[in-house]
Amino acid sequence: MKAEILCVGTEILLGDIVNTNASYISKRLAALGVEVYNHTVVGDNPNRLKSALKIAFDRADTVIMTGGLGPTYDDLTKETVAEYFNLEMFEDEKSLNEITAYFKRTGREMTENNRKQALFPQGAVIFPNENGTAPGFAVQKDGKTAVLLPGPPIEMMPMFKNSVEPYFLSMTDETLVSQNIHIFGMGESTVETKLRPLMLESTNPTIAPYAKRGEVRLRVTAKAHDYNSAHSLCEPMVQKICDMLGDVVYGVDIDSLQNAVVHALKENKLHLASAESCTGGMISSRITDISGASSVFSCGVCAYSNEIKEKVLGVSHDTLDKFGAVSDKTALEMARGVRKISGAQIGISTTGVAGPDTDEGKPVGLVYVGIDSPWYSDVLELHLSRGRRDERDDIRYMASSHALNLVLNAIKKYKGIN
Amino acid sequence: MKAEILCVGTEILLGDIVNTNASYISKRLAALGVEVYNHTVVGDNPNRLKSALKIAFDRADTVIMTGGLGPTYDDLTKETVAEYFNLEMFEDEKSLNEITAYFKRTGREMTENNRKQALFPQGAVIFPNENGTAPGFAVQKDGKTAVLLPGPPIEMMPMFKNSVEPYFLSMTDETLVSQNIHIFGMGESTVETKLRPLMLESTNPTIAPYAKRGEVRLRVTAKAHDYNSAHSLCEPMVQKICDMLGDVVYGVDIDSLQNAVVHALKENKLHLASAESCTGGMISSRITDISGASSVFSCGVCAYSNEIKEKVLGVSHDTLDKFGAVSDKTALEMARGVRKISGAQIGISTTGVAGPDTDEGKPVGLVYVGIDSPWYSDVLELHLSRGRRDERDDIRYMASSHALNLVLNAIKKYKGIN
Repeated sequence: MKAEILCVGTEILLGDIVNTNASYISKRLAALGVEVYNHTVVGDNPNRLKSALKIAFDRADTVIMTGGLGPTYDDLTKETVAEYFNLEMFEDEKSLNEITAYFKRTGREMTENNRKQALFPQGAVIFPNENGTAPGFAVQKDGKTAVLLPGPPIEMMPMFKNSVEPYFLSMTDETLVSQNIHIFGMGESTVETKLRPLMLESTNPTIAPYAKRGEVRLRVTAKAHDYNSAHSLCEPMVQKICDMLGDVVYGVDIDSLQNAVVHALKENKLHLASAESCTGGMISSRITDISGASSVFSCGVCAYSNEIKEKVLGVSHDTLDKFGAVSDKTALEMARGVRKISGAQIGISTTGVAGPDTDEGKPVGLVYVGIDSPWYSDVLELHLSRGRRDERDDIRYMASSHALNLVLNAIKKYKGIN
Repeated sequence: MKAEILCVGTEILLGDIVNTNASYISKRLAALGVEVYNHTVVGDNPNRLKSALKIAFDRADTVIMTGGLGPTYDDLTKETVAEYFNLEMFEDEKSLNEITAYFKRTGREMTENNRKQALFPQGAVIFPNENGTAPGFAVQKDGKTAVLLPGPPIEMMPMFKNSVEPYFLSMTDETLVSQNIHIFGMGESTVETKLRPLMLESTNPTIAPYAKRGEVRLRVTAKAHDYNSAHSLCEPMVQKICDMLGDVVYGVDIDSLQNAVVHALKENKLHLASAESCTGGMISSRITDISGASSVFSCGVCAYSNEIKEKVLGVSHDTLDKFGAVSDKTALEMARGVRKISGAQIGISTTGVAGPDTDEGKPVGLVYVGIDSPWYSDVLELHLSRGRRDERDDIRYMASSHALNLVLNAIKKYKGIN
């Protein structure tokens, strides 16, 4: 199966929205083992859309389209596909009822042109839309498959997961199962070098690495006739990789460092508090992004000024005077201070120079991450600048990742002694 | 001029990276008045690239390409373009010197294949790369223009701004000047309805609205022979729109609410402190994302638990008991408390239900934003749920935007009385 992703929407061509649909669909298709050779974007213009559709089917057998399924006159994707395949349209009663119900539920008025959203080309397999009014569908003719999905990611993504993936899988008698290994503290090239022989010799499951903002994710994907068989092909490979990589693996199928932290704190009935200088609230913001964080995250203090570091966190005037705010001593006293205020078992802190200007004569990118707990205290010294412009946000993000990872290490040590 | 953006990179087709280059270039081209009819993505494969280039030039006179300028064997964009235009390659000495200097400066070793990055098709206008090794270039033949840029956004974006835009402008005798009006607290459709007559009758400058995460931006763009003439076409229009929209305009060319807040605090020599519950550090993280925030942002406390709200922020036990943590009374006491700790003139607070679960029997999306200062105290009650799944992050973000906007209002009142 060779696929092309064809996104319809003038707003993408104007740069008003980033085409995250194409990357989402690509990623999901890669996991299914489907090759994607092209992405194309075209505006809401019937002639250019027709021409792009023809080009797409010249080079792929499956074209996945997003956008242009709305009720207005410039939403023409469905009509263009029906014309391309030379198929009549029919009104689907079930879809019409669902659209009517959606309007009722959200308290909006349904206008006549919304009926258009219940029209489909003959033979279409219809995908219901749980988050909007436009259903999606797939239609096949002469060995070519067109899949049409709504443009808004919040409607498209669940539809892809819940309807399009089962549709593709129903066309084969295979099931795919993936597990994701999450790594922090080892670069992508080192991970690849370590695993290359394993990656080359493995065909089922396959192993694919992905790097993003200082982290590496390895996706292990197995194919089999049913879920259990596929899963039992994944399991030993995941275990093997975790054993090979050791401590840098922070979780399997856990999604993010902050999720791993909240999970581990809950599991061990521990509480965390943060004292942030250069990261300015990013640690607490990442943690509280996880639903349920309230039960394990006591308190976060963003102490940017020296005065607040002294007054609120109790960092000693002497330390600030002698060593400066950006120092290992200050980092440790901040972590201790916030533990004391909050009563949490673990205190984590950051102090550093996020840039663009140096501070206290210290270079951009120098960050100290402090941790304090009854069983473990430490300070990391990090050098996070890569000499690039506009790296303030990257430095802050990387510092917050190191801090979250340090909390995970502290919890591991706690488990080790308890 | 009709343009197509052609991005080269297998990693985009695998969904490993989102194609932000296409949206960045589209947005900049829209501001230049250049029409973009298509985006295309193709992998690092010479035949498919050649075919995509041909299709692109069939429908556009200008093709802007990103990616594939690196030193390795699968970086083939340059070679493919030279072949398409039937042009010989030459080694550019200045570029070679710059590449050599770049390696020296960043302390890395230059390998032989890096010399390849100093090769260009005959007649190329070379664009230096300040953030990497691969220069970009433009080349013209038979009325067709190809512009080749490096793939990493951190290299591509400054090159586009500093070299490609002047290159396009040099091809005409026009200059474009844009000003951006930033709006919070009025929806895109209301803004459009209010301005529609003005938008329809204006051709120079033009007015274009953009909506993003609860904000609306209006771009006013004027064309003239020189910067000053274009600028003086923009100015009265910007003033007129600001007068029409009134208080919802939070700034002109100020980029973000947090930037406006830091700017206004500095200008008025005021200090701010934050006490966050449901936003969990997002306010402080957004503010400290602005370089120089340290001089005006005293302290942020993320007080998730009731205990910390009492102990650190001094919210009364009675208030929490009678009205709950999610209440206007608690919001106000939090704002007062953090002012007291920090000594800042303005205290801002949030407390609410970010979801997905309700809390204290209160619905998801209910958020109170409190503000306290010697001259102005208030509490906003917000209902931010739109009944969607996975809206926790949206609710938090919108609550933090409302809080920042409330700080701006407080500063306006301060200016009014001082």
